[in-house]
Amino acid sequence: MKALGPIPPEFSAIDGELAIGGRRASALVKEAGDTPLFVYSREIIEHQIAGLRKVMPERLNIHYAMKANPYGPLLEFLADLVDGLDIASSGELEQAREAGYLPREISFAGPGKRDRELWAAIRAGVTLNIESENEAQRALQMGKELGVIPRMAIRVNPTFELRGSGMKMGGGAKPFGVDADRVPDLARRIVDAGANWRGFHIYSGSQALDAEALIEAQGHVLDLAAQLARDAGVEVPHLNMGGGFGIPYFDKDRPLDITAIGAALAQRFAALPEVLEKTKFAIELGRYLVGEAGVYLTRIVDRKESHGTTYLITDGGLHHQLAASGNFGTVVRRNYPAAIVTRFDDEPEEVVNVVGCLCTPLDRLADAAHLPRAEVGDLVAIFCAGAYGASASPATFLGQGAAREMLV
Amino acid sequence: MKALGPIPPEFSAIDGELAIGGRRASALVKEAGDTPLFVYSREIIEHQIAGLRKVMPERLNIHYAMKANPYGPLLEFLADLVDGLDIASSGELEQAREAGYLPREISFAGPGKRDRELWAAIRAGVTLNIESENEAQRALQMGKELGVIPRMAIRVNPTFELRGSGMKMGGGAKPFGVDADRVPDLARRIVDAGANWRGFHIYSGSQALDAEALIEAQGHVLDLAAQLARDAGVEVPHLNMGGGFGIPYFDKDRPLDITAIGAALAQRFAALPEVLEKTKFAIELGRYLVGEAGVYLTRIVDRKESHGTTYLITDGGLHHQLAASGNFGTVVRRNYPAAIVTRFDDEPEEVVNVVGCLCTPLDRLADAAHLPRAEVGDLVAIFCAGAYGASASPATFLGQGAAREMLV
Repeated sequence: MKALGPIPPEFSAIDGELAIGGRRASALVKEAGDTPLFVYSREIIEHQIAGLRKVMPERLNIHYAMKANPYGPLLEFLADLVDGLDIASSGELEQAREAGYLPREISFAGPGKRDRELWAAIRAGVTLNIESENEAQRALQMGKELGVIPRMAIRVNPTFELRGSGMKMGGGAKPFGVDADRVPDLARRIVDAGANWRGFHIYSGSQALDAEALIEAQGHVLDLAAQLARDAGVEVPHLNMGGGFGIPYFDKDRPLDITAIGAALAQRFAALPEVLEKTKFAIELGRYLVGEAGVYLTRIVDRKESHGTTYLITDGGLHHQLAASGNFGTVVRRNYPAAIVTRFDDEPEEVVNVVGCLCTPLDRLADAAHLPRAEVGDLVAIFCAGAYGASASPATFLGQGAAREMLV
Repeated sequence: MKALGPIPPEFSAIDGELAIGGRRASALVKEAGDTPLFVYSREIIEHQIAGLRKVMPERLNIHYAMKANPYGPLLEFLADLVDGLDIASSGELEQAREAGYLPREISFAGPGKRDRELWAAIRAGVTLNIESENEAQRALQMGKELGVIPRMAIRVNPTFELRGSGMKMGGGAKPFGVDADRVPDLARRIVDAGANWRGFHIYSGSQALDAEALIEAQGHVLDLAAQLARDAGVEVPHLNMGGGFGIPYFDKDRPLDITAIGAALAQRFAALPEVLEKTKFAIELGRYLVGEAGVYLTRIVDRKESHGTTYLITDGGLHHQLAASGNFGTVVRRNYPAAIVTRFDDEPEEVVNVVGCLCTPLDRLADAAHLPRAEVGDLVAIFCAGAYGASASPATFLGQGAAREMLV
């Protein structure tokens, strides 16, 4: 038996059946027309953001990193809840504009911005998080050609890293951003060239559950930003302090202590160095805002035995939930939280392998999971499906096509 | 420095530039309109299939497993070169029909076939590789409802496995097929129910480069098929012996010795047990037929240094080449073969990291690769991109969208 991850506490049952946004999961599937289906809960997203607002200093803006989930209705819903949007391509820029975001709320990071992407972003008036000297040069040149003053910040490759981070984005050689020691020169050049200087973007890691590690990293970010500004002799109109707030996916994961982070940040904000006194601060969160709000619903197509092992074979799989299958940046596969939808409150009765419908042994959704008994036709829910799910999975693999999505 | 995989020997240069199908890569990009671009070579596919035909017994049919690459023009091209097509979903069935395959040439395997998929396949007259007793029952019932005699084979979960296989598909508990000890009963039931009994499908693994292991597995397949047929008292009109033929992706990988496999198979075919004397045999290959024929072309957007490491940042990445990034069923990431397109014949000069354009450290195409010097604007080729590339990668991730594809 292998433990399942913890089901986010916001979920409960109606008459024993998993409910999302106050409605039975089976009713949502009926409304959507079919499984597999991603359902995202407005209520849980609001709850998550309200929780952050409550404990974070008022001065701290909250940005949404749309790479986590670019589903249109969800993007639109978030527009009223967050203070800014971080995009990673011109494709995301188009989606963001359609969802009603204003260019001045948007910043664009990405180590390989193409000419046409820079062009579209500068013309729209989006802030560029500049990732190299070469990119700065291209952006300044395009600004001239377009007759537009480009809004430019520098993405810094910091010398520290976020301890315990799921993915390290700083510390040592990296393709992201400009090494800290070269930033002051570049900042001066950007300011001298007459760009609309926006400040720094310092992202040190992601998916951390250790508040102390995040507090330490945020402290380093503030110190580094101040030092860079002093060395360059520039102001810092805006500082994107990165994200890194994790959610519990696996057994024994504990929720992040955001109260501690908020308190530490308030202390730091109360004693800012002069060079940061007028700075606007933001954190950039994707997974933390929407990850726990999503549920992936799939239906059992077959229940079979093989050499004493029971398999529940579903109509979903890694083509929609690559990360849950353990094939996206994971060395050791662990189980996401999962449940049998109509037996949400029941005690586990048997140990089963929940797999997808693809002809590959990689297509696993829950290994040796202890669950109530389920039959063909029953729905299986995989939780923590709100971030890096639908858009981060190979939907066309084996001719399957995309899952349905809905916001409730 | 980390070694690159071996570039397939069929590729050469025109005036120092990588050529595919007799044309310069840069000309192909121009024709396609942009990078990233997958180019598939008819010539290499033909060469690969001709090589197989030459050494395999004439009696052995060659099927194409379209999951490896479902690109329409490539599917159409293969229709005249192979003897059958193996599909894994009703989506693939539609693509196969559009590409001109006849239903009687098609067989459908997949552990989670949905009712509407079975329905479409039975109505079309496709052979079902039955994966469970439950699925057999559903198919027989649907045949009655449709007034169509379903074509049914049984996919067997064998008790042996393909040694050295990249992915084990047999041996022990598996979600695929029916455990061998339950197959005779099920075969009898299918025959007695009046279905069009097609025989067995026995797939024991994939991506093997050891001819001895494949010879051993094929021997086991023939033995098992004969035993099952005798135990069930049924004939074996057709035996899909599976695939498993690998291609060299990584340093020190050696091409599979297909001559040895062909010779061993000819010996076995010359001394078949009575129950298999009239059987038609097929192997099912995907990667082996098309993998080496594909090249992924992407353009360098930035060249940057970070703490002494050089990064070539391209406009492609894991959203098109998940497997090359090391994030698809890989524990230890190794480099696929790669080259700088316009300096195909030049000696390596520097060690660089080739990465994609996504904001994630997972997006790596070649780590610490020894390559000729390349500048912004140059094309990078990643080889062995013909199988499990475009269709097996998360194309929508970070708003990037699909790569272009062309057959030359």
